[in-house]
Amino acid sequence: MKYDDITRQSLLYDFYGELLTERQKEVMELYNEENLSLAEIAEEFGISRQGVHDALHKAQKALEDYESKLGLVERFSATRQAIQNISEEIDNTIRMTAAQTEGAGTDGTVTGNLMHIRREIEQLEI
Amino acid sequence: MKYDDITRQSLLYDFYGELLTERQKEVMELYNEENLSLAEIAEEFGISRQGVHDALHKAQKALEDYESKLGLVERFSATRQAIQNISEEIDNTIRMTAAQTEGAGTDGTVTGNLMHIRREIEQLEI
Repeated sequence: MKYDDITRQSLLYDFYGELLTERQKEVMELYNEENLSLAEIAEEFGISRQGVHDALHKAQKALEDYESKLGLVERFSATRQAIQNISEEIDNTIRMTAAQTEGAGTDGTVTGNLMHIRREIEQLEI
Repeated sequence: MKYDDITRQSLLYDFYGELLTERQKEVMELYNEENLSLAEIAEEFGISRQGVHDALHKAQKALEDYESKLGLVERFSATRQAIQNISEEIDNTIRMTAAQTEGAGTDGTVTGNLMHIRREIEQLEI
């Protein structure tokens, strides 16, 4: 899988994984997180390699169906981008503040505040 | 229903409504959005008042089940609160900037920037 696909798979699973059956979750975790092969998972569960393949495919489709209805991954990506833009604007403002208050005897609390705010924004749970 | 209950119902429906059946969605919308009575909805669908009551109850339970698994409403509420706190911190910083740069010949762009950033944060799609 390409890097972007892996990220997307991982986000889909983060958002909707809890809606899968226990078995689907187990198979997906062994395959995506533990990087076991289809053959290894098949052995683990005592089913055929094809059975594992089908289970993965079905789970994947279920995740995509949830995304097509709820669109959380798309929204998450857009919001992440928006937060990154805001973070850059705060950086610019910090630089601007430094330039404008040069020699004005300021004590740096404004800059400190802005750095704190930027950190909080970047850590928003979205 | 109390105001907080209405808000919660509305958020649950916003987040998970698309996962309900078409019939469940229709019943919920008539009841919650159009404020029709059980009797009116029963007439609309040609089912019993008890049937409407059961459908609403089942739809409500489905929404709560999704929330217990995905927790989006809880996360949304926490993030909204965090954004409000950040917004207040920006307000404080705007005031602080004004005080510190008084007489320093600044042109107000820092303050303008901060107001713009605050607006963007408040409009984040979370």
